[in-house]
Amino acid sequence: MSSPGTTKQWILTSKPVGTPTITGENPTFTLRTVDLPPVKDGQILVKVLYFSNDAGIRTFIGTTVDSDRLYLPPVPLGTPMRSGIIGEVLESKSDKFKPGELIMEFHRATWSEKVVIDAEGVQPVAPLPAGISITHYLGAFGGSGLAGYIGLLDVAEAKPEHTIVVSAAAGATGSVVVQTAVKLLGAKRVVGIAGGPEKCAWVRDHLGAHACVDYKSPTFVQDLKAATPDEVNVFFDNVGGAVLDGVLTRMAKHSVIAVCGAVSQYNSEEPMALKNWFEVVSQRIIIKGFFMFDYLNKVPKAMEVLIGAAAAGTIKVDIEDVREAKIEDVPNVWAAMYGGANKGKSVTKLIS
Amino acid sequence: MSSPGTTKQWILTSKPVGTPTITGENPTFTLRTVDLPPVKDGQILVKVLYFSNDAGIRTFIGTTVDSDRLYLPPVPLGTPMRSGIIGEVLESKSDKFKPGELIMEFHRATWSEKVVIDAEGVQPVAPLPAGISITHYLGAFGGSGLAGYIGLLDVAEAKPEHTIVVSAAAGATGSVVVQTAVKLLGAKRVVGIAGGPEKCAWVRDHLGAHACVDYKSPTFVQDLKAATPDEVNVFFDNVGGAVLDGVLTRMAKHSVIAVCGAVSQYNSEEPMALKNWFEVVSQRIIIKGFFMFDYLNKVPKAMEVLIGAAAAGTIKVDIEDVREAKIEDVPNVWAAMYGGANKGKSVTKLIS
Repeated sequence: MSSPGTTKQWILTSKPVGTPTITGENPTFTLRTVDLPPVKDGQILVKVLYFSNDAGIRTFIGTTVDSDRLYLPPVPLGTPMRSGIIGEVLESKSDKFKPGELIMEFHRATWSEKVVIDAEGVQPVAPLPAGISITHYLGAFGGSGLAGYIGLLDVAEAKPEHTIVVSAAAGATGSVVVQTAVKLLGAKRVVGIAGGPEKCAWVRDHLGAHACVDYKSPTFVQDLKAATPDEVNVFFDNVGGAVLDGVLTRMAKHSVIAVCGAVSQYNSEEPMALKNWFEVVSQRIIIKGFFMFDYLNKVPKAMEVLIGAAAAGTIKVDIEDVREAKIEDVPNVWAAMYGGANKGKSVTKLIS
Repeated sequence: MSSPGTTKQWILTSKPVGTPTITGENPTFTLRTVDLPPVKDGQILVKVLYFSNDAGIRTFIGTTVDSDRLYLPPVPLGTPMRSGIIGEVLESKSDKFKPGELIMEFHRATWSEKVVIDAEGVQPVAPLPAGISITHYLGAFGGSGLAGYIGLLDVAEAKPEHTIVVSAAAGATGSVVVQTAVKLLGAKRVVGIAGGPEKCAWVRDHLGAHACVDYKSPTFVQDLKAATPDEVNVFFDNVGGAVLDGVLTRMAKHSVIAVCGAVSQYNSEEPMALKNWFEVVSQRIIIKGFFMFDYLNKVPKAMEVLIGAAAAGTIKVDIEDVREAKIEDVPNVWAAMYGGANKGKSVTKLIS
């Protein structure tokens, strides 16, 4: 068997402390050109069209969590950086796929122009109704959106009579949580938290939140109090840190915090500082960390509801942030997320 | 109606930031001599015999929690400091009690030599079997011990197959949690956390924990890891802060943290620093703040079990820390708790 050629790919060359880099003496990622392995029986060669930019992947390249305690294995040093992708089959030695077909893969693809992977477990990309872009399989209908939908309804068990607060409300997961709460659940009051007045206006006007509070404002906690006159029954938290600390002061008795992520901490060398932890006792708060993969049995129904609602126009999916980039720029587009660059799901469209 | 005389009592004269004091320009508490009010119909005059020293009361005199969000009302400035007591009835205008009888009261008594209170809601002190001191109604059979028993079994839902970790294991609540886990539940492995080798030895040898880890040791996290080879299914936390942060690294998937208190934070002006919050997501941890008063329907059975076990010698109650003090020293005995002075429940026996 001969190699199907070469590919550029990003290798994890050091575990970052703080913000990952691709420059300097000790870069987190290094671009290399490597020979692709021969395509064996049961495998496919895929040309990458889109990379999924996920905040959580930061935890798999260097974190305080022992590597054997992560919910997915970490990326070993010296190996290609992992990424979810949508791609086109170039060559197939599997009955499942033919050349020219589109596929998606969440765990075994990498930041490469082309990848060779086992076809088993790879998902075909079915066309979406109403002209909806297939890139939403990486966002609203992928891990990000499903975590929002399932986290809100099955983990936090949000009810129509609840006041619901969502952090990173303009993000890939938060935008689905806000819309699910407002438009599918019909919750009494839905309050987003986002960075800056422009994003907050968008969370209100475009996503339909009843209010949105700017966590960068010096009056964040007072603004949050004003926005939650009946306190908070469910807090869907993607952020942690000062945002979580502020919301703790507004949680109602016997309320629930669903912890989906802690993006404020991933690139931080400082521990998370909580002044208001005693609220957990005082209000008898239940905090539930969750991971969407524990709820795979809920996924088919969730996708059916979300895709149906998007096709009917009940929820908006025109909120992804697709940026064209050459392979050389892939890490920078991903890292820009942590600065709050994106509204909705961040996706990189690979160009040559 | 004439006054039944005077009493010395401690007034809350300023809300403390950090450690409460009774000296300096702005003391937290000030001792005054006041006229007792006349005893009205339905009321009793009580001579205080014992004060219950509770760590949690710190949160009612000055805290980050809005006063209208505390689980009991805060102590207003200029009013007597609240305390649980056991006392002797000196005068009664109630059918419920006769002079000479012993009573206990948890919420409406104060740091005073004598108090006048409504008899409604005051509990009679029934003799305990096997010569057990009635002071245990303030400890193992009072709020402290019941929070431990109910928190472990009903809130955290600990099971015999679990590894259970308990912080402040030598304290009033922790000592009941350890003994309930080892001797009543028969848990697979029970690990205490306490301050210093002497307390740790006592938690192991006297309370029966399988291991005890010293949180003051520079190797605390490594020691905890060695003591919990199968990770931790239930963490009963009285402490918060660095102790909680360390235990987060040992929690098993889908494990439970029952948060009873956060004694590390009560006198602290620093926010709680957590490096390991992402473990909540990674391990899908459930954190449940609780307050024993939400479980009053469980109290009669819990008291029956605990008193029966103590009378049978299955659990030890010779672990209270009763200190004699004049009224002038009452705040200092209470405050010594935060320095870890006590093993088991701290009780002040009032002497003249």
